[in-house]
Order: sequence, then structure tokens, then C-alpha cells
Amino acid sequence: MRKILIIGSGKSTSYLLKYLLDKSEEEDLHIIVADKDIQNAKNLLNDHKNSQAIALDVFDRSAREKAIENADIVISMLPARYHIEVAKDCISFGKNMVTASYVSSEMADLDKAAKNKGLVFMNEIGVDPGLDHMSAMDVLDRIREKGGKIILFESFAGGLVAPESDNNLWNYKFTWNPRNVVVAGQGSAAKFIQEGTYKYIPYHRLFRRTEFLEIDGYGRFEAYANRDSLKYQSIYGLDSIKTLYRGSMRRVGYSRAWNMFVQLGLTDDSYTIDDSENMSYRDFMNAFLAYSPTDSVELKFRMALKIDQDDIVWDKLIELDIFSNKKMVALKKATPAEILQKILMDSWQLGPDDKDMLVMYHKFGYELDGKEYQIDSTMVTIGEDQTYTAMAKTVGLPVAIATLAILNEKITTPGVQIPINKEVYQPILKELQEFGIVFTEKEVPYLGYNPLNV
Amino acid sequence: MRKILIIGSGKSTSYLLKYLLDKSEEEDLHIIVADKDIQNAKNLLNDHKNSQAIALDVFDRSAREKAIENADIVISMLPARYHIEVAKDCISFGKNMVTASYVSSEMADLDKAAKNKGLVFMNEIGVDPGLDHMSAMDVLDRIREKGGKIILFESFAGGLVAPESDNNLWNYKFTWNPRNVVVAGQGSAAKFIQEGTYKYIPYHRLFRRTEFLEIDGYGRFEAYANRDSLKYQSIYGLDSIKTLYRGSMRRVGYSRAWNMFVQLGLTDDSYTIDDSENMSYRDFMNAFLAYSPTDSVELKFRMALKIDQDDIVWDKLIELDIFSNKKMVALKKATPAEILQKILMDSWQLGPDDKDMLVMYHKFGYELDGKEYQIDSTMVTIGEDQTYTAMAKTVGLPVAIATLAILNEKITTPGVQIPINKEVYQPILKELQEFGIVFTEKEVPYLGYNPLNV
Repeated sequence: MRKILIIGSGKSTSYLLKYLLDKSEEEDLHIIVADKDIQNAKNLLNDHKNSQAIALDVFDRSAREKAIENADIVISMLPARYHIEVAKDCISFGKNMVTASYVSSEMADLDKAAKNKGLVFMNEIGVDPGLDHMSAMDVLDRIREKGGKIILFESFAGGLVAPESDNNLWNYKFTWNPRNVVVAGQGSAAKFIQEGTYKYIPYHRLFRRTEFLEIDGYGRFEAYANRDSLKYQSIYGLDSIKTLYRGSMRRVGYSRAWNMFVQLGLTDDSYTIDDSENMSYRDFMNAFLAYSPTDSVELKFRMALKIDQDDIVWDKLIELDIFSNKKMVALKKATPAEILQKILMDSWQLGPDDKDMLVMYHKFGYELDGKEYQIDSTMVTIGEDQTYTAMAKTVGLPVAIATLAILNEKITTPGVQIPINKEVYQPILKELQEFGIVFTEKEVPYLGYNPLNV
Repeated sequence: MRKILIIGSGKSTSYLLKYLLDKSEEEDLHIIVADKDIQNAKNLLNDHKNSQAIALDVFDRSAREKAIENADIVISMLPARYHIEVAKDCISFGKNMVTASYVSSEMADLDKAAKNKGLVFMNEIGVDPGLDHMSAMDVLDRIREKGGKIILFESFAGGLVAPESDNNLWNYKFTWNPRNVVVAGQGSAAKFIQEGTYKYIPYHRLFRRTEFLEIDGYGRFEAYANRDSLKYQSIYGLDSIKTLYRGSMRRVGYSRAWNMFVQLGLTDDSYTIDDSENMSYRDFMNAFLAYSPTDSVELKFRMALKIDQDDIVWDKLIELDIFSNKKMVALKKATPAEILQKILMDSWQLGPDDKDMLVMYHKFGYELDGKEYQIDSTMVTIGEDQTYTAMAKTVGLPVAIATLAILNEKITTPGVQIPINKEVYQPILKELQEFGIVFTEKEVPYLGYNPLNV
């Protein structure tokens, strides 16, 4: 049997494992899941005869090497920073490798070694990055094949809560790493191109410069700009494009309320708060407001951020119970971001019956024979339950399908790569449709940002 | 003759050299100024017989070592990051050393070596840091000597333009390193203590949380918080203090207008702007505003920052000509902060007849015999001209006086240190009075931030 080693068995592995187990008979596969804690793996594998869960500490070099040497292909579902040790072993032992993570510079440095050994190192083949690349390149390549010139590409994605489980004022719950949600957008200013002009948005303005989107049957969304919309400009072949923008989707109104936390400084992850352990939520808020012996924390908060009492933003804040003097932070030497995350996790955890939702929205503007056109392509995937989530599905299925394609030598071009070639993305997108991951395209009038051509 | 080597002869050395030259006969001093470019030194030394200017590249190790070995004491007026090489040579050759800069961790690491060799390494003995330490410790020590318990210490300083030269809407001109002005307050959140509570202000809120101050005869000022008001808490012996705040002074209204630049992202020094070289000032502003084919940059700016047309903030911006489409940035791959600095330097340069002004304001609150008291101590120094500036005076004279005191073995305690001991600061403060650098103290009712003791 052909042995697939999956290192890491976190939340995103349910569909990945299900797909491979379902194919294990006809494809002659033996699935080995390696993790420090194998309980989750065991639950997911459910004693399937073509599977095995092994305890593995990825920092235990000899155990790791042994597991990798024994495999025919390796999937790393570890946090991104741990891929590199696995990747080096894959080079040593001549194994193909698949990850859903961004190509780190260390990973990119292995390109030559991978090519020398004829190995496929497929990365960024989850949902975002992954499905975004594939679904975008699919349309971009088709437009170019018929002679169109791309003038606009805007791409948006979001991990949200499904409409049937959407029951808080923020229209948001944590469906992936909460920490990433809290620090989203930090670092350098967001950068993109509109009508040929570079535009920059500093972090503290990011959530006030949103775009609106509508998906048929799912209503309105908003999006704030990603940090670097130009990261894939050359890779996608868009060097002479006029408008290029990538963003993260939320339900309308989220960003305006989230901006209150940004403004107050609660999302800062760069320093720790003194005595955070003994603070109440109220104390935490008060640490960012001027001292007063008499004025309430609520009034100081409203005054500082200019929130009227009948503003929905205020209701959103109250819903989170951020002014509680009973609920304690109880985290030692925590950063503001860590404390805010804890407060949000009280309210934004998925309930046992809640479902998540993955949304993606691409806009493609192009010129053909002197005319301007636009195609909008949207995808919505709803999770089944808390194990078989939309997030796990859209991350895990592309990984699983790509892994099998590499094993079956359908994907053979060696090197460190991402799924932007038709040979790679086309069969994967096609197979994903069988699982309900479908992009709906519609032609709309091209508007751009200068519809009157002033 | 006793040889004093001064490495670096920038803007802050005029009074330093004048003081030492004036004392050179009676004190038997020979002043050697070493710099890469000796023109400024030559102008300042004016062929004084007890002086010499030598060309020295501080990175030329053997030349540097030779100069240091030949001296009896070394003053480094180099940019702070270059002190360490000089300091190591001073250790090697057994020379005392003086700087006006913050003690870096590398400098602090030399403490043991300096003590072993019995060497005085006096740092932070300019104006801020320097005069602030000395004038604060003078009052703090006196309060403690009479049995008072310090409950509040607030300290403010500013390098500003003299009232007679104060003729722009910002009431501000560059009297020291413009770059430091543009990036002031960046990094981690500002941190201080008010009435026993830690308070934090993120950078993008810093210029909206100012304090007001008034100096008799000089009118009103405002101050924004320094990044770390607690840096000297233990060093000053203020571990159990209730209120501790340090800030930078401006004229009232500066911060509210400066905040516009902060909000738009123009003070960011962490990334470069594409094609900055070919941008007009107007293009630069527009890069931080939403694209529009028709709306003017002015209206977008006002809308984004909610500036009414009759707001004085708007007049301040117009005065800087930031919307010019004729004035070009003309800087390659520049950061927003670098471009903003260039724009400001058009308007905020001191004119040939302009004078600068150095202001300092300390508030000391204390308890004695069950009662609360407060002493306010203020200092204003006005420059004479563009060479003999208030900045050069308040930086250079403490350095010069301390250097002579070390040479004359009035200061002998060895080690890497700052001027917080009475033996050091008392004679220096006394002598500074002869030069018009005088702190005026007055008793005021103690208010704190909880005057009604609620």
C-alpha cells in the first residue's frame, strides 16, 4: 500500500482524512497521522483499517526522520513555522510534500534542492491561500486565452458564521485561529492599486475604508484591505493591471465596531500589560482611558470614541460585556491583543450546533476588442457541524486531492510551488465541485473606479 | 596642558566649545575637536590658540585610537549609535568619557570595566536627557530631605521656536533633528501612571490625549506623553509614586493638527512608497486617500479626517502647501515619514534671524505631615542666534561643565552613570545659573487627578 504521512491533526484535518480514507481502498492507500496528541486523529480515523495514528513530537528528530523515511508522500498540517524541518527531511529522503501554508523564504530556498531531486513541494493549497489562487487563475487564464486584457482583479475571502447560526450583533464567531482575527491587518500599511494609482492605508484606518459586496442569496458583506494586495501581482501575470485589491470579508458593520478596539489600542500585541492577571475586563478598558475619580469607564469610552448612546456599535460592545468588573482577565503578563482575544472568546465561540461559512468573491475586469467586461465569481460553503466545518472542507479537500494527484503522478513538475498552473488547478477545481465547492460566475457591467472615464 | 578631545562637531557644540575655550587659560586646557568634516569646528574654534581641529573618520580605528590615547578626557558628540567604539577605546586607554546621549545597553555593559579601571563614563548630561535629570533630582532630593513623600512627578520638555520668531500657524519650527520630530512617539504604546493606575495610549491616539501647561510670561503649552514615562521610576527613587508622567511640549493646537498626519499614515517610517521620486506633494497626499476620478484631494482629505472648512487645522495644512501639484517629492524609494519631513522642512526651517527656545516644566506633588503640597519648576532658555541656540546651550554647557569637573576630580565615582547624584548635579545646576539657565520654582495647591479624594 502507498503510505501517506500527515503530520499534525488539528481542526482542518477532518475532510482531508475523510477524503483519503474514502479513497483508500480503490487507491491502495495507508494513512498515517502523526501528532503529539493523537486523540483527535484517533477520533477522526475511527479505527479505519487503512489508517494508523502515531504519537510524534516533531522536534524529536530521529522519530520524525523515521516517520518521513517510511512514507511515500508527506502532508504537513503543522503551524506554518514548523514546516521547514519536515521539508528538509523530505529533501533528504526524497519525498514529495504538501502544505496549505504560505511559502516561507526558508521553504522557497529549498526550490533548487527539490528540483534537483525531482520532488513536488506543493504549498498554499488550502482555502486562502489555495482555493483563491486556483479559482482566480481559472478565470484569469480563460479571459487571457480568448484575448482579453485584465484591467481589474479584486479578490475577497472570509471565514464567517453560517446564516442559520448567525445570532450575535457582530454577525461573527471564531471559525479559525482567534489570534489571527485579533491581530488581522497589523504590520505595514495595506497597499493596493486603484485605477493605476498605488494606495496605502495605515492599520489604524484599515477598518474605516471598507468595500461592500453582495452575494446572491446571502446578502451584503464588507471587506477591508489585506496588507499586501500586490503579493501575487507578478505571479498571476497582472503586472500592467489598473486595479488590484485583495480583502477580508465580514458582515456589514463589523469593521466599524472593530475599529473601536483598534482605536483604543486593544489589538496591540507588541507589549504586555502590567498586572493583567488581576484586572477585570473593566480595568482593562480603563487602562486605555484617561484617569477620572468620578466619570464612569462607559462614559469615558463613549467620549473617547465618540459613540452615541443609540449607536449600534455601542450595543455590540455591551453584548461582549467588556465593562464587567466581575469577569477577570486572569492572564499573566498578557498583551492587549491576548486579553481582547480572551474577552471575545467568551462571546464568539461556535455553539455545539453552530455551523461556519466560507465565502469567496472575485471580480475580474477585462478589455476585449475595445470593450470592457466584468465577471464576478462567488463561492459559499457552509459547514456540516463542528467537526466537518466549511473551513476544514475548503482547506482539507484541495490538500487531499493534490496529494493523491501527486502520488498518482498527475502532478509531476518538480520544485517549491503554489497551485497556479492549469494542469494543477483545473482537475482539482473540477473534483471540488463534486463536494459542493462551486464557483458561480456572472457577467456584470464593468465599472471600475472611474465609470465615466473622467 | 590638559587635552580634551571632542569627537563630533555638529550643531550642539557651539556653547560647549565656547565654554571650554573661555576656561582654557585659567584651567590649562587644550581643546582638540575631531570630525570627518572640520569646517564647522574651525569656524567655532576661530583659531583660538588653545585649540586644534583634526580630521578624523571615527571608523578609522587606528586614527581614532591614536586621538583617544593622546587625550586626557573624551567627549563624544557623535550620533548615539557611534559612541560605543569610542567608549571601548576609552576603556582600553584608561580615559574618562562624557556623552549627552541615552545609555545604550552596550554602554551599560561597560560599567564593570569602567569601574575596574576607575573611569567616569558620564552620559545623559545634555538637556533631555540631562538637565531634566538634574533639575528633577534637585527638587526630589530636597523634598525627601525634609521628610516629604513624593506622590506625583510630571516632567515636560520641548525644543520650540522663540516667541519673537514664532510666526507660523503651527507655532513650531525645527530646532533639532527633524527626523526625530516626524517619528516622535512611535514604537510601543505610551505608558504612564495616574493615581496608581497604569495607563496606555497607542501611537495613533497619542496626539489626542494632551495635557495643558502654562509658564508665566510665556503663555500656554500642551504636552503629549513620552513612550515610557516609567523609564526612570526606580532610578529617581519613585517606586511607590501615584502619578508619573513625562511628556513633550508644543504650543497649544500643534498636536491636534499633527494628528491629521498620524491618522493619514504620513509619519510611518516602516515601508517605502513606490515611485516616490516622481510624486508631487499632492500625489503623496492622494496615495493615502480613496481613489476618485472627480473628487479633489482636498475634499477627500477633509472628508477622511472630518475637517470643517473653517477649522484652524485646515489653515495649518494649507500653510504647508501639502496639496501642491508643482512641488515634487524628488526622493527615491522614500518612506512616508521621509517625504513628510521634506515637506515640513520647506516651511519649518529657522530663518536667518530666528531664535529657538528650550522649555522645561516639572510638577512635584508630595505629602508632608499629613498635608499635600506641590512645587512647579519651570525653565525657559532662548537662543541668541542660529549658532548659539538654546538647544546648543542647554545640551553643551552641562557637558562642558561636567567634563571640567571630571578633569578636576570633582566628580570621581567611577562607572557608567547619569547625573542623578547631588555631588554631580548641584554644582552643575549652580554654574548653569550664571549662564541664565535658571529653574523658577513656585508652590501651588496640590491637585493631582483626584482633587476631591473621591
